[in-house]
Amino acid sequence: MDFRSDNVTGAAPEILAALAAANAGTRSSYGEDAETARVEAKLKDLFETELAAFFVATGTAANSLGLSLLAPPWGAIYCHEGAHIAVDECGAPEFYTGGAKLVDLPGADGKLTAAQLALLLPGGKGVVHHPQPAAISLTQATEAGTCYRAGEIAAIAETGRRHGLKLHMDGARFGNAVAFLGASPAELTWRAGVEVLSFGASKNGALAAEAVIIFDKRLAEELAFRRKRAGHLFSKMRFLTAQIDAMLTGDLWLKHARHANATARRLAEGLAAIPGVRLVHPVEANEIFVDLPEAAICGLETDGFRFYRWLGEDKQRLRLVTAFDTKQADVDAFVAAAARHAATANEPAA
Amino acid sequence: MDFRSDNVTGAAPEILAALAAANAGTRSSYGEDAETARVEAKLKDLFETELAAFFVATGTAANSLGLSLLAPPWGAIYCHEGAHIAVDECGAPEFYTGGAKLVDLPGADGKLTAAQLALLLPGGKGVVHHPQPAAISLTQATEAGTCYRAGEIAAIAETGRRHGLKLHMDGARFGNAVAFLGASPAELTWRAGVEVLSFGASKNGALAAEAVIIFDKRLAEELAFRRKRAGHLFSKMRFLTAQIDAMLTGDLWLKHARHANATARRLAEGLAAIPGVRLVHPVEANEIFVDLPEAAICGLETDGFRFYRWLGEDKQRLRLVTAFDTKQADVDAFVAAAARHAATANEPAA
Amino acid sequence: MDFRSDNVTGAAPEILAALAAANAGTRSSYGEDAETARVEAKLKDLFETELAAFFVATGTAANSLGLSLLAPPWGAIYCHEGAHIAVDECGAPEFYTGGAKLVDLPGADGKLTAAQLALLLPGGKGVVHHPQPAAISLTQATEAGTCYRAGEIAAIAETGRRHGLKLHMDGARFGNAVAFLGASPAELTWRAGVEVLSFGASKNGALAAEAVIIFDKRLAEELAFRRKRAGHLFSKMRFLTAQIDAMLTGDLWLKHARHANATARRLAEGLAAIPGVRLVHPVEANEIFVDLPEAAICGLETDGFRFYRWLGEDKQRLRLVTAFDTKQADVDAFVAAAARHAATANEPAA
Amino acid sequence: MDFRSDNVTGAAPEILAALAAANAGTRSSYGEDAETARVEAKLKDLFETELAAFFVATGTAANSLGLSLLAPPWGAIYCHEGAHIAVDECGAPEFYTGGAKLVDLPGADGKLTAAQLALLLPGGKGVVHHPQPAAISLTQATEAGTCYRAGEIAAIAETGRRHGLKLHMDGARFGNAVAFLGASPAELTWRAGVEVLSFGASKNGALAAEAVIIFDKRLAEELAFRRKRAGHLFSKMRFLTAQIDAMLTGDLWLKHARHANATARRLAEGLAAIPGVRLVHPVEANEIFVDLPEAAICGLETDGFRFYRWLGEDKQRLRLVTAFDTKQADVDAFVAAAARHAATANEPAA
Repeated sequence: MDFRSDNVTGAAPEILAALAAANAGTRSSYGEDAETARVEAKLKDLFETELAAFFVATGTAANSLGLSLLAPPWGAIYCHEGAHIAVDECGAPEFYTGGAKLVDLPGADGKLTAAQLALLLPGGKGVVHHPQPAAISLTQATEAGTCYRAGEIAAIAETGRRHGLKLHMDGARFGNAVAFLGASPAELTWRAGVEVLSFGASKNGALAAEAVIIFDKRLAEELAFRRKRAGHLFSKMRFLTAQIDAMLTGDLWLKHARHANATARRLAEGLAAIPGVRLVHPVEANEIFVDLPEAAICGLETDGFRFYRWLGEDKQRLRLVTAFDTKQADVDAFVAAAARHAATANEPAA
Repeated sequence: MDFRSDNVTGAAPEILAALAAANAGTRSSYGEDAETARVEAKLKDLFETELAAFFVATGTAANSLGLSLLAPPWGAIYCHEGAHIAVDECGAPEFYTGGAKLVDLPGADGKLTAAQLALLLPGGKGVVHHPQPAAISLTQATEAGTCYRAGEIAAIAETGRRHGLKLHMDGARFGNAVAFLGASPAELTWRAGVEVLSFGASKNGALAAEAVIIFDKRLAEELAFRRKRAGHLFSKMRFLTAQIDAMLTGDLWLKHARHANATARRLAEGLAAIPGVRLVHPVEANEIFVDLPEAAICGLETDGFRFYRWLGEDKQRLRLVTAFDTKQADVDAFVAAAARHAATANEPAA
Repeated sequence: MDFRSDNVTGAAPEILAALAAANAGTRSSYGEDAETARVEAKLKDLFETELAAFFVATGTAANSLGLSLLAPPWGAIYCHEGAHIAVDECGAPEFYTGGAKLVDLPGADGKLTAAQLALLLPGGKGVVHHPQPAAISLTQATEAGTCYRAGEIAAIAETGRRHGLKLHMDGARFGNAVAFLGASPAELTWRAGVEVLSFGASKNGALAAEAVIIFDKRLAEELAFRRKRAGHLFSKMRFLTAQIDAMLTGDLWLKHARHANATARRLAEGLAAIPGVRLVHPVEANEIFVDLPEAAICGLETDGFRFYRWLGEDKQRLRLVTAFDTKQADVDAFVAAAARHAATANEPAA
Repeated sequence: MDFRSDNVTGAAPEILAALAAANAGTRSSYGEDAETARVEAKLKDLFETELAAFFVATGTAANSLGLSLLAPPWGAIYCHEGAHIAVDECGAPEFYTGGAKLVDLPGADGKLTAAQLALLLPGGKGVVHHPQPAAISLTQATEAGTCYRAGEIAAIAETGRRHGLKLHMDGARFGNAVAFLGASPAELTWRAGVEVLSFGASKNGALAAEAVIIFDKRLAEELAFRRKRAGHLFSKMRFLTAQIDAMLTGDLWLKHARHANATARRLAEGLAAIPGVRLVHPVEANEIFVDLPEAAICGLETDGFRFYRWLGEDKQRLRLVTAFDTKQADVDAFVAAAARHAATANEPAA
């Protein structure tokens, strides 16, 4: 019963089957094959627009490559202080952009707001001494397990655009956001002003596959070279393509995301009902942040449940993440154990 | 019948089986799992020494990460002018090292020699105006389909070491070299003075897997950070590890390489026996470079054989590459067709 | 009467005289001349220790080159959120380090504290996902016109050293700090734990000259190459050297700094005595931050005084900077005008 | 009598006078002053066109900044194998471009030809595996002391432009070329297809000053940021501006260059008349490469003449460089001494 992350899981059986199915025969290497073109076409259908898609194996690669299209080396990228690009990629955006500056901003429930950005911009635009505001990066679903509404994204995009900033979206959990919001992929991206999206599959049941999706194709030209020189161009591209293909077949990506969201919601509701337990953020995707007594946490650890402690006000915070294959029984077992340990923890000392 | 490259193939069934076998259960992400440690231990056994191994998905990533340990941004890396790092990685070594200079050198049959390097070194060492000689990179087997003998490697290493240069080996086809030479992996690497090896599996029947093998562990410390910030740290590391594991099980990597070498040899011998056909380099691994009349090349293309034309003196050169799954019948068919077309081409016009 | 900055001035006559004196005859280029060695020796005397000195023309170059010795591309550098390296160098530290991350920290009166750093460190040290804490950069005197005491520096150095961090000092106004504190250059740098110092002269009456001073000479080896490849190695080095030489002759640097400090103090005391005027920070060097009524600011502007407005709580803040050649009469004129305008501004509307 | 380089000299008296003249009063920092605008206007007059000029202190900075406008990190820059950017800048172009590849080409008398480039291009343009041909860099006058005619430049520019390459000119000795060719600055640059020029003054009698001149102003926008983040934006810009201003006043730059060229010619003619002495390249600017007997070289060294030995076929080659202030008497003394030593060297052993 492992709630550490949605990347501690293996891959869905459909993914492995797709790899096997793609294995026969030879192919033109490096993405010059028919399947890659076909999956790109499927993405155009899904997003209801022209786009360019570049497949890579990791979310950090997808984000960094995407950002390198939007910010020059002297650019500034505005993001939430908890964003993956800011705290979990060991400086990958700086590496790929050639030294752009991430401006880490606070924000409730893991989200930036248009109002906040309006106060900060133009932020030294045109002044030679300062990194030049170039892009905004949103995480969807956020690192706090919440989701930006289409209107919020559009307002942020519009605020940035007034000052010439581009909009990037880290969609490592894009499926979870789409599943929660019930909006279309188009509404949550290019129609709202997103220029580049990391469309994540690895955390949603793939083996290792992400797509950098570029809605403004003029930006795409150089990505082929950037990907290659970063070592992210697979020779046997079919094995990346096949994963995305399987994800898009029968809306597997949404099915997975809905399952992860539903188990997260069940887990959240179960925990919220326990006295002394507090949900930190609204649970809108597949991540739950929860405060509970230290003794209860220790009890859960002793029981063998796996999860990460998170930095909370009193250091009694957990992060729990569900995935495409999380079992309802495990969720219920966790809730029951938490309730038991919390009750003990709350008892007055004799 | 596709002889374009050893990366137009799919993966060996053992590789796919290994992925499936590794799929069950959860794992600590990012290589903090027991299997990764176990496969690293297997590599220590194979190479008969302490080492650090970092798994990545592409050869370009392996080479560039490895080189970034050996050359500072102001360093110079000596390599053959046909080396993959020099001509086929779109500047990846420059990206990863922060701007080191590749010094592209000529050399018969794709090889550098100690004598040649002795003439070039110290090469401005200590002079502030010049990029500083830092490393030598050898390709084993070479891009010409030949192999460095252990003694050649040792002589090159020794020549470099006298001037403080480190030795890198691009082993995208390391298996083919080991299979041809009958020397041990240790003899061809650290015992001969190699500090960092790209141990390739992708071209040898894997899906997408390479290991950066670092024999001087003091150099290894920073690679964890370099890999992560380049986006090459897989969250579901088990799927890279499993491929290398399968390769090492029952010496699958050598079995594959021997097969590719044997079919290449059969192909080379068949072609060499045809009047008007000339092998360009000794065929010691799985690549064949062959000159034949333009009309014969066109005939083979019309027949549907696939291969790359190569820049030869008279532009009548082919590169043919065999792989772990090349069929003997295909080789024989190619030879027969080449003989037929060459005979026609050589007939005097009526 | 221009209080915009200490870089709106020209150079001191001693500096121009030194350039003329150095002009005759030929010299070995690129710093291989006797004068450069001699001035380095003078710096060793001044700092009472072995050191390596590299002369460059700008403070941004000095800071960035120095930091590039202390932080790898995946490193994190802790600095005050108002530090020149953080806000006024357009990402130069990121460029020179190859992408290190500046961690911008708040702090009263422009200063960091050991206690603050102790709470933040080890800050993800050893965790592959995070930029690795590598260095702390202090500005002496600070951007707020205050000075770190030797004990404060030592405490910060010690806190960092416990976690392996190096200490950098941006001494664009180092002279002003030494002049104010009455401590020796040694006490304020290497004896307190500073590894690399930007020893500024440009803002202190030179034409354009700074020295990167490296107290741990093992760190110095690579700086020769870093400086050259950044285009900061002057061919006619004598003209940089001569400026530093003149600065060190007869303690001209301290004489200049004392003058700038004294005029700043006079200005501060004059302003502080005006009702409705508030000094924002202690005035310990040559920068004054002062809040006064908007109408008074406009009056001063109309009078032709030049200064920068600064972002204050009510946007009624000025920064005033004095220099080596600021005239007492100009200071007195400014104070008198400020008093007059403030009095008018404070009168109740009729 | 020092013929080592044109950078072993001091500065011309007009330059020092200009610094003194520019010293009085305060100025807006960082080039926001009227003089900088005025000198840019003078350059527009000189080049008879719109342009943007950025002043820096070193030729390496000027070249690298200029190249960074013309080649992306994955770009290839074609240059002569003896070019300063290729061999004497410690990888500065790689640093500034973010890793572009210099393609070093041979060429008689230090020059590239359009025919040579026509054979190499398109050079992998559009192929993701290869660095992308982006720019050509010519050195004018060349490192061999020769000059490109306007027609040669135009032919190279046209060859490159057909494949989308831009043209850079390293004009560290641009004045010497203009003086020799008698062509206008416009004819030798933008009219012939040059996009960016390093207009050198340091080697032509300035203290330390160069201008990056950008003829396509759309390329200029980002240079302000690139210069600042490289630490090459002088706060007291007047002191760079004043040097260029003095150079342009009364055509001082051409007067200097003509003098250096004339003394070089006199030196060359004197040497060429000596039996056993051979000029290696036509002497068209202020550099002379000359082969003479080893014994004669030693004799000259013993006499106290200073010059650099150069790598020749028999290692008996000298480089001699004249400058704006080379004395005719010194030239004559060198020739006389060379004649004497050569005569002795050529005598048969008794």
